[in-house]
Amino acid sequence: MPSEFELIARYFTRGTTHTTLGVGDDGALIAPAPGQELVISTDMLVEGTHFLPDTDAEDLGWKTLAVNVSDMAAMGARPRWATLAAVLPAPTPEWIEAFARGFFACAEEFGIDLIGGDTTRGPRAFCVTILGEVAAGKALRRSGAGLGDDIWVSGQPGRAALGLAHLQGRTVLAEPRRAECVAALQRPQPRVALGLALQGLATAAIDVSDGLLADLGHILEASRVSASVQVAVPSAPTLERDAWLSGGDDYELVFTAPPSCRSAIDALAGRLQLALTRIGTIAAGVAGAIDLRDAKGNSLAIRQRGYDHFPSPDA
Amino acid sequence: MPSEFELIARYFTRGTTHTTLGVGDDGALIAPAPGQELVISTDMLVEGTHFLPDTDAEDLGWKTLAVNVSDMAAMGARPRWATLAAVLPAPTPEWIEAFARGFFACAEEFGIDLIGGDTTRGPRAFCVTILGEVAAGKALRRSGAGLGDDIWVSGQPGRAALGLAHLQGRTVLAEPRRAECVAALQRPQPRVALGLALQGLATAAIDVSDGLLADLGHILEASRVSASVQVAVPSAPTLERDAWLSGGDDYELVFTAPPSCRSAIDALAGRLQLALTRIGTIAAGVAGAIDLRDAKGNSLAIRQRGYDHFPSPDA
Repeated sequence: MPSEFELIARYFTRGTTHTTLGVGDDGALIAPAPGQELVISTDMLVEGTHFLPDTDAEDLGWKTLAVNVSDMAAMGARPRWATLAAVLPAPTPEWIEAFARGFFACAEEFGIDLIGGDTTRGPRAFCVTILGEVAAGKALRRSGAGLGDDIWVSGQPGRAALGLAHLQGRTVLAEPRRAECVAALQRPQPRVALGLALQGLATAAIDVSDGLLADLGHILEASRVSASVQVAVPSAPTLERDAWLSGGDDYELVFTAPPSCRSAIDALAGRLQLALTRIGTIAAGVAGAIDLRDAKGNSLAIRQRGYDHFPSPDA
Repeated sequence: MPSEFELIARYFTRGTTHTTLGVGDDGALIAPAPGQELVISTDMLVEGTHFLPDTDAEDLGWKTLAVNVSDMAAMGARPRWATLAAVLPAPTPEWIEAFARGFFACAEEFGIDLIGGDTTRGPRAFCVTILGEVAAGKALRRSGAGLGDDIWVSGQPGRAALGLAHLQGRTVLAEPRRAECVAALQRPQPRVALGLALQGLATAAIDVSDGLLADLGHILEASRVSASVQVAVPSAPTLERDAWLSGGDDYELVFTAPPSCRSAIDALAGRLQLALTRIGTIAAGVAGAIDLRDAKGNSLAIRQRGYDHFPSPDA
């Protein structure tokens, strides 16, 4: 019977399409294309904090890579390579095989070579580092939002938070909403095509991992501006409203662009078959501040901008 | 009082010297020099498996980066950038500050920019991905060992394993041996200068992380050759002998080179003030096999090639 080590080697060693030297040496070798900058991001997923202990292995494999792909999307980069370090308690062969199936489904969907790995026994956690390419000087940063820019969001943020609330018994969703929200949580679809298409249109971008208002706040702080946001939500707090405003884990993109780009962005929405919604305007004022109003223009209190994976003990 | 999150941001956000965009966006941006390939490696350090729970925070910071730097050394690459993802239970400000001091001491020693990070609360673990540069086509791989090549090892492997045995009460070392072995365990010195100098001399290389025989075995398997190794060790098993042959965590380099390079390698040892010892010869025969003999030529049984962090439950 093969050891877990051998099983992991078997399931995670696959051919590469654009890598000089892949898994199996002290390091991988890649040769970025001339004129491209490399974009690098790393994320750790820890059981209990980032995923539920009973998450389906194949979904978990997908999501482990997908949340990193989303960082490439937010930079306007094309994801190209990834490494995976895993801490695992005592996986069954079936679990390893299913996790690998989900991970490589995402890798193939987005054209990513797995080029390095590491496995240790311990409490379940995964660390992916992803590398992408972007034409030199063309990356979308958080710091480029300008006064008067529109604020846009893709898709329907909040679905993942609702899916989580359903799975945790804090709400009951009816079909087809249930399936849609649970899928948003477990099989997030990183917006790579959108990020690439936003090069030359967007002035700043971020992906919604912590919550719409929290992540917009990161753009505002980096750009040293404030925002006026107007949304069609109920004025009284509801789970649905809070999920929309501050639910994390959706991996939609929030971005800013000058009003002159509106028709191009609307055309992009049609081409990508993806909702792109204008939710506000960049303003002067205190860096990071958000003036939130409902559809009638009434001021809304912000209860929580997002979810902090590492909250202060004295907060 | 600042939150842990703020403390981590404060201690781990430092200036960079060769990075287009560092920590603080969805990804970092780097521009590798023309004509260079990138070498990438990732390693996870988990408490209890890779370090003792009471390890000094500053030492742990150093080692977390140093073991990754060692992978660059083994590839003959110059380390340039790193990302750090940390899972931490509830660190004190003093702990964070000391860990950062050790981590950046290593980063500065080897000219590395920290370009990305991630923090989660949970059982202590660290994941570093390191990126280095090497002239295209010049990387040292495991697969290049040729028949008749000498086998060399740097420094004194086994000291880290002895240091661990001392700390665990399995042996008692006298000074100055104690200090030297504990330092080898807690402040390993990656052999970057040696790796760079071996370009054009060595045909294959690896760092000793799992144990001398285990890591030599990886070269033999990748190169599809066997080895004849002759060492000046007692014929009866002792802790010292086993540490030398199969103790991990030393981060010395094992490499192969044609006999025509002997004088150049001896000169290198002098220049680097580092012992470089010839321990055997590459031979034909079963790929991966090691014929181990003592100084008199008597055959020695191999009890264990190295330490497997993830042993098979049925092994």
